[in-house]
Amino acid sequence: MTRVPMERLIEFGAEVLTARGVADDRARIVSETIVEAEAFRQSTHGVVQFRSVCSALGVSADAKADPRVVTDRGAMALIDANGSIPILAMKLAREIAVRKAREYGVATAMVRHSGWIAALSTHLAAVAREGLLATAWAQSSSCKDCAPFGGIDACFSTNPIALAFPTDEGPVVADFSTASFSMGATSAMIKRNEKTETPRFLDKDGMSSRDPAVMKDGGSIMFAGCEAEGYKGYALSLFNEALTAAAGGSANNPDVPGSQSFGLTVIDPDHFAGTEYYLKEMKRFMTRVRASRVRDGVDRIRFPGERGFAALEDCRAQGVPLDDEKLGMLNQLAAECGVDPLKAD
Amino acid sequence: MTRVPMERLIEFGAEVLTARGVADDRARIVSETIVEAEAFRQSTHGVVQFRSVCSALGVSADAKADPRVVTDRGAMALIDANGSIPILAMKLAREIAVRKAREYGVATAMVRHSGWIAALSTHLAAVAREGLLATAWAQSSSCKDCAPFGGIDACFSTNPIALAFPTDEGPVVADFSTASFSMGATSAMIKRNEKTETPRFLDKDGMSSRDPAVMKDGGSIMFAGCEAEGYKGYALSLFNEALTAAAGGSANNPDVPGSQSFGLTVIDPDHFAGTEYYLKEMKRFMTRVRASRVRDGVDRIRFPGERGFAALEDCRAQGVPLDDEKLGMLNQLAAECGVDPLKAD
Repeated sequence: MTRVPMERLIEFGAEVLTARGVADDRARIVSETIVEAEAFRQSTHGVVQFRSVCSALGVSADAKADPRVVTDRGAMALIDANGSIPILAMKLAREIAVRKAREYGVATAMVRHSGWIAALSTHLAAVAREGLLATAWAQSSSCKDCAPFGGIDACFSTNPIALAFPTDEGPVVADFSTASFSMGATSAMIKRNEKTETPRFLDKDGMSSRDPAVMKDGGSIMFAGCEAEGYKGYALSLFNEALTAAAGGSANNPDVPGSQSFGLTVIDPDHFAGTEYYLKEMKRFMTRVRASRVRDGVDRIRFPGERGFAALEDCRAQGVPLDDEKLGMLNQLAAECGVDPLKAD
Repeated sequence: MTRVPMERLIEFGAEVLTARGVADDRARIVSETIVEAEAFRQSTHGVVQFRSVCSALGVSADAKADPRVVTDRGAMALIDANGSIPILAMKLAREIAVRKAREYGVATAMVRHSGWIAALSTHLAAVAREGLLATAWAQSSSCKDCAPFGGIDACFSTNPIALAFPTDEGPVVADFSTASFSMGATSAMIKRNEKTETPRFLDKDGMSSRDPAVMKDGGSIMFAGCEAEGYKGYALSLFNEALTAAAGGSANNPDVPGSQSFGLTVIDPDHFAGTEYYLKEMKRFMTRVRASRVRDGVDRIRFPGERGFAALEDCRAQGVPLDDEKLGMLNQLAAECGVDPLKAD
């Protein structure tokens, strides 16, 4: 395991992207987002994605393209990724939503014709650091991961949602799939040949299963809540579909080239009872929640994202840990791009 | 079982409320909301609540009070129930949010110092009938139903959320608890001496349990998703807390008199890719979802609220079914208020 200073890793990523024709300022934004996801331990959205972003350039993304604001009116904005690196579109969406929420009390920005944008939590943490509350809903048009509740044939992606709110200790951020597992978690379980304790998958005939490998043979992932409460995950996932349908990117159409769509809503507590009041109330509430006794095997009560933010702090202070596989991949990429490699510490 | 014409039941409820000093127009709004919840088969929010609303008059609610708009700025509004019948505050919030969403693309209205407002779905169905998407988050300050994920001591209410979106067939509406069960469902199971198939409760020492009766002895309801995915219900419930903290009604403070708070966000698809486009996309999507094969024991794929809307249609055509217990309670209330009783058909 090697530790690379966070700033060095961001520079490295930016150099790789710049070598592939991405302008300096854009390369910096994309690299910062990817490295922050890695540091937050959202590693499926981390440095492994430098390779994916480079591979997409010239195929699904254009190094020179900018996201396009389709509509900017009142408290809403609609953004088309327009062939840009999708992270840039999501960053633009969140910046507009933050500005408009401060002006109008609430704002919604949607992104269409997008692709992978790193973890939703990375973007929402940035919004919550501005003292605002946020929800994000994501949809992927080409995935067939989940069947409608009661059904067998998969026609939903694992449609994640994310929620964030500010506290005087920093943001609380949750980011999870409306399916029982994300595809990333499912693939990792398949690789490790793991089964789940209770049925969380359906096989190709709709029989419940504890084996994620059914996904390789026409199976699906149950919605969050599984047999007993899967109607809740189904309802949330349907809302992902409806919200992103409104973005205009043929989000629900499997017959057009696959893309991702996002809906982000930001609320400014200062327009309601005021930020000072809000933070004071949340402080008392969190103190009360933390005072709960803990169940066997639990060391203390946590809020969503707490481990991620601790890991991020650790990375800022001590460098980002990279295993040999990641370091090797990054240095291979560096060689291909003619960029100085990362050194082991 | 008696069927009472829906309009007659609404008039009856309004007469009861008017007899208790509520002005005609307000009595009509409250009665319509309650009867619609009954017809939608949200019966814990239905006609049994006429008694509760009457009992609250002069105690926690004033027949003459109006909800108060505390702030109305940009795309937001903050409403204080102000001792009014809380349904009136929620109706005002949704009307302002609908108007503002049409103007700004999105709007958020919050309600504080409120109480029971009937089912969230009743209010959201009305918003979706206007062609708009909506989310609602509710919080109750005095309930101790759920412990923080990993914890033992209950300090959350079952904090429900609701989601609604329009389609060319009418609204799709989901309304569910961020706990594994609502308190209503839990109480009903306790009454019937039922246990759950898998553990969905914690006893007073934090041991998992299938017995809802643990609630009578310091136990709690697990969050939606239970042991495996309860962190998702926990995250949703925390967002209910944060959003309503911003409403300014001391929502998270157990040391002040109990009240309920609500956050409602409404989005107008017409500002994004347009209502016509949105409805066309959703129609194709729903057709595809319905084409899925069904699992054993499932007759067909349904969308959230489908059974409720079918029941509502049936009630509009055939009258609202009332069992002898409900009819007896309503006619007892009529006698107390000097109002003509409902007749059995």
